[in-house]
Amino acid sequence: MSALKGIFCPNIVPFTQDGRLNEYELRKIVNWLLEKGINGLYPNGSTGEFTRLSFEERLRVVEVIADEANGRAPILAGAAEANIEQVLKAAAHYADLGCQAISVTGPYFFKVSAESIEHYFRELARQSPIDIILYNIPQFSNEIPVEVIRRLALDCPRIAGVKDSSRDLPRFLNTLNQVKSQRPDFTCLIGCEEILFPALMMGADGGTIASSGVIPEAIVKIYQHFKQGDFEGCKHLQFKILELINAMLVAGNFPEGFRAGVALRGFEPGPSRQPMSPGELASLELVREHMACILADCGHAEAASSCRRCAPSTDRSDVESIVRDVMRTFR
Amino acid sequence: MSALKGIFCPNIVPFTQDGRLNEYELRKIVNWLLEKGINGLYPNGSTGEFTRLSFEERLRVVEVIADEANGRAPILAGAAEANIEQVLKAAAHYADLGCQAISVTGPYFFKVSAESIEHYFRELARQSPIDIILYNIPQFSNEIPVEVIRRLALDCPRIAGVKDSSRDLPRFLNTLNQVKSQRPDFTCLIGCEEILFPALMMGADGGTIASSGVIPEAIVKIYQHFKQGDFEGCKHLQFKILELINAMLVAGNFPEGFRAGVALRGFEPGPSRQPMSPGELASLELVREHMACILADCGHAEAASSCRRCAPSTDRSDVESIVRDVMRTFR
Amino acid sequence: MSALKGIFCPNIVPFTQDGRLNEYELRKIVNWLLEKGINGLYPNGSTGEFTRLSFEERLRVVEVIADEANGRAPILAGAAEANIEQVLKAAAHYADLGCQAISVTGPYFFKVSAESIEHYFRELARQSPIDIILYNIPQFSNEIPVEVIRRLALDCPRIAGVKDSSRDLPRFLNTLNQVKSQRPDFTCLIGCEEILFPALMMGADGGTIASSGVIPEAIVKIYQHFKQGDFEGCKHLQFKILELINAMLVAGNFPEGFRAGVALRGFEPGPSRQPMSPGELASLELVREHMACILADCGHAEAASSCRRCAPSTDRSDVESIVRDVMRTFR
Amino acid sequence: MSALKGIFCPNIVPFTQDGRLNEYELRKIVNWLLEKGINGLYPNGSTGEFTRLSFEERLRVVEVIADEANGRAPILAGAAEANIEQVLKAAAHYADLGCQAISVTGPYFFKVSAESIEHYFRELARQSPIDIILYNIPQFSNEIPVEVIRRLALDCPRIAGVKDSSRDLPRFLNTLNQVKSQRPDFTCLIGCEEILFPALMMGADGGTIASSGVIPEAIVKIYQHFKQGDFEGCKHLQFKILELINAMLVAGNFPEGFRAGVALRGFEPGPSRQPMSPGELASLELVREHMACILADCGHAEAASSCRRCAPSTDRSDVESIVRDVMRTFR
Repeated sequence: MSALKGIFCPNIVPFTQDGRLNEYELRKIVNWLLEKGINGLYPNGSTGEFTRLSFEERLRVVEVIADEANGRAPILAGAAEANIEQVLKAAAHYADLGCQAISVTGPYFFKVSAESIEHYFRELARQSPIDIILYNIPQFSNEIPVEVIRRLALDCPRIAGVKDSSRDLPRFLNTLNQVKSQRPDFTCLIGCEEILFPALMMGADGGTIASSGVIPEAIVKIYQHFKQGDFEGCKHLQFKILELINAMLVAGNFPEGFRAGVALRGFEPGPSRQPMSPGELASLELVREHMACILADCGHAEAASSCRRCAPSTDRSDVESIVRDVMRTFR
Repeated sequence: MSALKGIFCPNIVPFTQDGRLNEYELRKIVNWLLEKGINGLYPNGSTGEFTRLSFEERLRVVEVIADEANGRAPILAGAAEANIEQVLKAAAHYADLGCQAISVTGPYFFKVSAESIEHYFRELARQSPIDIILYNIPQFSNEIPVEVIRRLALDCPRIAGVKDSSRDLPRFLNTLNQVKSQRPDFTCLIGCEEILFPALMMGADGGTIASSGVIPEAIVKIYQHFKQGDFEGCKHLQFKILELINAMLVAGNFPEGFRAGVALRGFEPGPSRQPMSPGELASLELVREHMACILADCGHAEAASSCRRCAPSTDRSDVESIVRDVMRTFR
Repeated sequence: MSALKGIFCPNIVPFTQDGRLNEYELRKIVNWLLEKGINGLYPNGSTGEFTRLSFEERLRVVEVIADEANGRAPILAGAAEANIEQVLKAAAHYADLGCQAISVTGPYFFKVSAESIEHYFRELARQSPIDIILYNIPQFSNEIPVEVIRRLALDCPRIAGVKDSSRDLPRFLNTLNQVKSQRPDFTCLIGCEEILFPALMMGADGGTIASSGVIPEAIVKIYQHFKQGDFEGCKHLQFKILELINAMLVAGNFPEGFRAGVALRGFEPGPSRQPMSPGELASLELVREHMACILADCGHAEAASSCRRCAPSTDRSDVESIVRDVMRTFR
Repeated sequence: MSALKGIFCPNIVPFTQDGRLNEYELRKIVNWLLEKGINGLYPNGSTGEFTRLSFEERLRVVEVIADEANGRAPILAGAAEANIEQVLKAAAHYADLGCQAISVTGPYFFKVSAESIEHYFRELARQSPIDIILYNIPQFSNEIPVEVIRRLALDCPRIAGVKDSSRDLPRFLNTLNQVKSQRPDFTCLIGCEEILFPALMMGADGGTIASSGVIPEAIVKIYQHFKQGDFEGCKHLQFKILELINAMLVAGNFPEGFRAGVALRGFEPGPSRQPMSPGELASLELVREHMACILADCGHAEAASSCRRCAPSTDRSDVESIVRDVMRTFR
């Protein structure tokens, strides 16, 4: 009986100015997300830059979130570690913390055959003390073919679902058709914000939606509209958020745009773990202003102060001064 | 004011045993499609193997179809020719034949910059005597970026729409959001059968759907259900056809599976222009039987005779005899 | 007994101002190439933009070249046509014209299985009146795997060699090791100018080298140095030409840079069949000047007049005037 | 003044039956490699499966190797860690251990812009206590463009060289031409065994060659032949090793084939960190036998016992028994 339904937020990880995990800010973010009605939390996703944290930091992120959430929402904890033993070590800890499931990508860096990927998940399923969600993200790690998902779902009770971030709706529909039809409790989450509503319409249980960390109001509302059968409302909101999503996707290296969005909502994400060049930082600043306008238009007043259109006393020369400021911080 | 709405069928091209264009069979297919309620005809698409025909054959295919259709449905004629002059030569002929528009892919074989692609279409738009539909199919030819489509749509009245076969719904939604919102008469057709209903739901004007040449009944019904607001009916049919689509997509080189499907509906597609090995032909035969079962299950009685489950007098040894037959034809 | 050794030039195709085949200029180019010591001619290669010509134009290009060469050098004629019948039609014509062999790419546009590619070439080999060179260029058309080449080479006398433009030296060495070792008369030509010398060193019979249409002197000399065992000379020249090659590869869409290079040697390639935007033409002009300097440095005096460094009376404001000129031609 | 010349061996990492680092076997391997004349050691390369080890294990691998080598050969230590701080932490440790340099890939998993990659390496160069070799392996991590390498080489003394595993010789020649020509002490190592000799011929300082862990004799001899100007000897050996390399590359997921090769030379690599399916293990066993034959043919007597051809008392039924054994270990 699955608790993984609705909108799961793959949170960003805030850092202090000297690059440590900012636990205070992380707790603030978690509270805010829960207040906004997010259905579940999803630490150590790609948005959480799990590959840029140490093993110990990944464990700590989940500890902090589990402590702060304190049972208010289910937690899907990312556990894509270096090898089976490390995954299981993390899994045991996340089970102890009361998480509902772990999410594991196909192996990354090396190319690995579909057969080996299947065997890898069978081994995990055999030993894991907690449910496993297959995390398919072929942009970054080895694809988990639908046929492999089907066999794992039918053979392994511990494999409880899939989170598909491939942006490939035909693939997702085949997953629903070939897997969920055979095992109705198999959770199918879409990991692509642009097609949340179409995926729900076709049978998705919910989504892991990075922009729900920036505009939880709109994303939660799409899900609620859908449950109420208000498809026009869903469609309207789905299109309304596209421009912001596009802005966040092009703003620096992923997930910098999403971290900038979180900043516009009043939090302090702090410096990035993946440094950018001065020129890229200046570009990001311009995108950030554009995002501020969109957010202000959506009624998020806290963003208005960063929006030059909404804060009319500033003028175009300020853009240059911002660029200059950014450049100066780099000697 | 656009006539390009609903389901357009990108027909296969039937050949005679000695490899000529089989005009008699093509006329039979066109009539059948129109009787089944197809909204428009789409010769010289990828399903029509336009790159495997000669220039003269491509012109002839449209002539035959225009003659047989005789105004019963609009024609979107594929005109992706070797260079601008050849495209315009074909366009003039298709205009004379009464076609509604031509469809043109981005240049293929060579990689071409987005700027050059835009300039190429501007040149075509300036000179074409007939409306142009941009045909985006990045699997086979240079992608036409959404931003390029937007500029062309806003600047060039002759560019009347896009047919997107990229299988990329996020991209299609961005097209609707950035282009159709600015120019409502811009036709947006989805070219991916697995997501016909989701695309309609989000605002597509229709689709160019290869499987509508095999199961026009189901594809037309999805469109009709959608117009009537019967979304459950759409969803049910969309899932129902997935298995057949998958079978057709894996059956030999594209579009062999679709040609096999047309054969199961009682037509003679004849030999392929792209030869396959004996082993591949034997595999195709097995897929064809599987397709026959699916089609017979869908109530298409003419397919039942090719379905071993439905035609119980045959048995498994027949498979071997078929394989042997196929092998024999190759000495 | 193979005539396909040494440097084959895949010529560009010159056009008149109104876009026709410029036969007069083509004859001039052929004569010049033969005077410079090119070992063979290779019409209808990618540099010859075969996909942008009509079938009739492709035949005509070979006719003109065969007539002008008049037996002075072997001709490898590109014959990658729309289907087997068209390839054979072209092959028969090229055989009548006295060409040594045809060159055929794997099928393009559609993805085709390795098995079907093999079968396709077996059919061609069975029927062709002239030797066939397999043209592997996976950037633009379906790859012909080494294993397929091996089987074709061992089974089909008509398959006389391979021209590999994949830029993949490990692949080329495997071809030499698995195919040429079994059939020593199998011609192995490298189609990548940056690695001509390393490929010769490892056993290539020669190369089809696009830059031999621009700097035949240097390319022929690399081959001659190699035959004489002057490896330091080869290495020196190989590095010397790299900057020019890079400039030609980035100058507009391929093969515009090579067409610009031919112009700098005193010929009139005429307007491109693939139009470029005004901005791209202005950029191309700047690259062309840079190429002129390199060519002038190499002692090709005819290029000096286009080189601002070598022609000191001009100054930087001329660049702007050139850009303005280019812009003006586009209204 | 660079110590990074000649053949560096990216060692495999042996594990105990229960999956721990097998330090005893690792020491044996290091000694054997040094006895065979390997010029340098390269722990934590891709062959060393660095992404499948924990941070602590990676440090330990270098400690063991540094201790065992005890100054007999320079050590290039892989230090591609999760973020800048972790890289620097590892770098400090490796410097203390007396390593010559660290090797760092472009960031992996996430796509990162070329500008950010450049900035990332500038930051590392500014802070690292030890020389840095840029490790370009675009198959697995973000490509480091030649232009970025050029700027880093000219600006940052700490960036001491590049190891290029892209299999792309044109790219490597451009690196030599654009970078090494400007900064002659910049080390250029080729990371692709199929083209070791061509790369040396064109100016490589050496190579990081995975098969030098399996056939150090042949790889070292290629380098020695080259230094002596015996190019025919180089060429002969380069072709001689191709079949073995191909066998190792297709044997299971990389680097399983190389681990199997090490086993055939008398070491115990132990179980893989990336599990394979029973069917894959059976296939690997067949490849292993084939490799044994090749190694026995090369005079490596210790491999002969695993070679069915060389050990004639065994027969084909043994293959089945091996497969059965393998299957049994998986219940």
